[in-house]
Amino acid sequence: MATITSLTVHDVRFPTSRELDGSDAMNPDPDYSAAYVELRTSDGEAGYGLVFTIGRGNDVQAAAIEALSLHVLDRDVDTLLADLGGFSRALIGDSQLRWLGPEKGVMHMAIGALVNAAWDLRARREDKPLWLLLAELTPEQVVELVDFRYLTDALTREEALEILRRAEPGKAGRIATLQKSGIPAYTTTPGWLGYSDGKLAHLLREARAEGFEMVKLKVGGSVEDDVRRMAVARDVLGADFPIAIDANQRWDVAEAVQWLGRLAPYRPAWIEEPTSPDDVLAHAAIRRAVAPLPVATGEQVQNRIVAKQLMQAEAIDVFQLDAARVGGVNENIAIMLLAAKFSVPVCPHAGGVGLCELVQHYAFFDAAAVSGEHGHRYIEYVDHLHEHFEDPVSIVDGAYEAPLAAGSGARMHPSTVESHLYPTGPVWTEESHVPVA
Amino acid sequence: MATITSLTVHDVRFPTSRELDGSDAMNPDPDYSAAYVELRTSDGEAGYGLVFTIGRGNDVQAAAIEALSLHVLDRDVDTLLADLGGFSRALIGDSQLRWLGPEKGVMHMAIGALVNAAWDLRARREDKPLWLLLAELTPEQVVELVDFRYLTDALTREEALEILRRAEPGKAGRIATLQKSGIPAYTTTPGWLGYSDGKLAHLLREARAEGFEMVKLKVGGSVEDDVRRMAVARDVLGADFPIAIDANQRWDVAEAVQWLGRLAPYRPAWIEEPTSPDDVLAHAAIRRAVAPLPVATGEQVQNRIVAKQLMQAEAIDVFQLDAARVGGVNENIAIMLLAAKFSVPVCPHAGGVGLCELVQHYAFFDAAAVSGEHGHRYIEYVDHLHEHFEDPVSIVDGAYEAPLAAGSGARMHPSTVESHLYPTGPVWTEESHVPVA
Repeated sequence: MATITSLTVHDVRFPTSRELDGSDAMNPDPDYSAAYVELRTSDGEAGYGLVFTIGRGNDVQAAAIEALSLHVLDRDVDTLLADLGGFSRALIGDSQLRWLGPEKGVMHMAIGALVNAAWDLRARREDKPLWLLLAELTPEQVVELVDFRYLTDALTREEALEILRRAEPGKAGRIATLQKSGIPAYTTTPGWLGYSDGKLAHLLREARAEGFEMVKLKVGGSVEDDVRRMAVARDVLGADFPIAIDANQRWDVAEAVQWLGRLAPYRPAWIEEPTSPDDVLAHAAIRRAVAPLPVATGEQVQNRIVAKQLMQAEAIDVFQLDAARVGGVNENIAIMLLAAKFSVPVCPHAGGVGLCELVQHYAFFDAAAVSGEHGHRYIEYVDHLHEHFEDPVSIVDGAYEAPLAAGSGARMHPSTVESHLYPTGPVWTEESHVPVA
Repeated sequence: MATITSLTVHDVRFPTSRELDGSDAMNPDPDYSAAYVELRTSDGEAGYGLVFTIGRGNDVQAAAIEALSLHVLDRDVDTLLADLGGFSRALIGDSQLRWLGPEKGVMHMAIGALVNAAWDLRARREDKPLWLLLAELTPEQVVELVDFRYLTDALTREEALEILRRAEPGKAGRIATLQKSGIPAYTTTPGWLGYSDGKLAHLLREARAEGFEMVKLKVGGSVEDDVRRMAVARDVLGADFPIAIDANQRWDVAEAVQWLGRLAPYRPAWIEEPTSPDDVLAHAAIRRAVAPLPVATGEQVQNRIVAKQLMQAEAIDVFQLDAARVGGVNENIAIMLLAAKFSVPVCPHAGGVGLCELVQHYAFFDAAAVSGEHGHRYIEYVDHLHEHFEDPVSIVDGAYEAPLAAGSGARMHPSTVESHLYPTGPVWTEESHVPVA
């Protein structure tokens, strides 16, 4: 009988603020970081998960994951992994920890990382990539994973079962197609606010040459700059190439509507995060005002309850699921089922560190077993920090290839963890590396 | 020139789960706790603040407050205290920390505790109780404290100014009345789920005899139990005595409507937290279905953005402001202004440890300078743990007396902090005191 023998959390940080990679209107100087969790068993097996943060506070996030130890240490591995729905509900339902959210912020993301580490362990033991493990579950097994509390006014267990059963017939064929053709990516690499127009144009040309079918530009710093940068992008890419824009929560309703009026002539593919991710009614108001410009959000939507309301209120056209913001695999399955119910395409958020590696599994599972093929599926891609992962994503002709390696993609190279440990690793202690405070 | 020389956080816990005090349908075994922060200056002055939690995770909450040190250490005290609006915005706008919410959960509550400690320090230096300090600010000074980001579709700076200016003429008179008569309290002391019917009846009689004009019962465990307990309460208190009920987020929409149908014959004064505090649309649906039964929520509403939507969607009749859930004094002023705009009475949540001491200041400020007298103002009261505070609340004839002591009420006795430190204080190390894990 194998048991869980340790839960270790590493405070891993990358000094990305030195290069202005990742700069946007709300986040001028991120140091991409991960509170990285490692579960070990008495059989010598391991599972990995992470919360992505952008620097300060990564230690607080690590402490929150450590506070969950009592829920895993000494647990029988087979029993735990056989009921990951129950495991997820037990963590979310811990009444003392629940007070710290409930179901949001630092403690909820900590739960997500631990739930994901357990899934990673299970996928490694079953020698399958996470997406395929999930896709091969029966509809009955999938709904057992979901916490329907606070969802039933929009999605009942029976409706979820029906969605999954409807997807059963073509599943094997879709899995084969996904393994052959992958899922289209769009890239945010060219569009950071910190880049010059020349660098923007150069990177846009490069993106198109690499086969990407959509790009995304950050907006929201200055409307004049945004108009100029959109003109550069249209000039480089032509009238019909899809160019999404992302305001990273910068605006109130009236400002969003006004600003987007200036950008509308350049026909953005969507406006992402026009305002606070908590503001369902503001998203709905903005969407009505800027129609037919599609509205997208999701990367900082705190849980399934807010996701549900965004769909109930017809506030969004695209849901941008994140792998490390909500309560893990289980809650993201709930969100994918909600999106299928409301016919909202799921186009996962990625970038940061490890998010591409993690989130691709959701998109492949969704395509295989939940919403099926619908022609509106993209996964975000940023060409950054993949070299630190044991199973980095593979992008071919602008598409994510189906992950083949066992697990969830979360495992970093041990040498990366060691060198980027904050504040003691060499990346942070060598003088030339210390960033401006 | 005085500077901030230290920020110290204490993990203080009270073993309340031994007595089932505070048990409700979602929180069966709370150990009331506080992540308690102490700011010290080079002049030997101090300011105090706290986040209330219910046990596990209080250490994570403490770590989150400590992570804010860089925003206060070595700061000039006069400059800091002269612009607490700027201080609050700087903390909430720290882009790296913001990623951990944004504006919600552990990190946001940490910001609230630090903001409140700075207000406590300012009130002590000015030798005024916090509520009076706030009430004596001009309308222009008050709006400078508020972060209007994400509010302007419901409340602009100009509208806020107008609300405050409208309250100016009678302010001095209202302050005098408040100092003479206080604000009515309602008590939750009798109504915990863990109590027998006999204890319930006894405590209800006691509450009425003490002059309370309203009581509150916890519900949501079992509908048959709730019907029986409401019958006991009506029997003891008579047909017209206001009895509020509180489900602590227990239900989905359909279940809430069904359950409340069973309790409606006993005419509850309001139903509090029928469902998730994140679910604006569900509160609105429940309110429509159970009308004219009033709906209340707020104690776990994460920020002003969700508070705003609850009012925009006509989802609530009463807002239950909490002193330690949102980003502190400043964000609570924003919420009181929103409530005044939408004519929603603010009836603060209290109980726990220290919440009565803290939250009374908001109710007195609101009555003096924001919404004025309207006859629907109550402050929750639980007769519990007040002896640990240097300036405990004073309840006379069922009403909170206006606080007289300088500060915000947050300061605990040093001996309490020492004895209840977790896990090293004597309350936790003496064997007879160790609770069941």
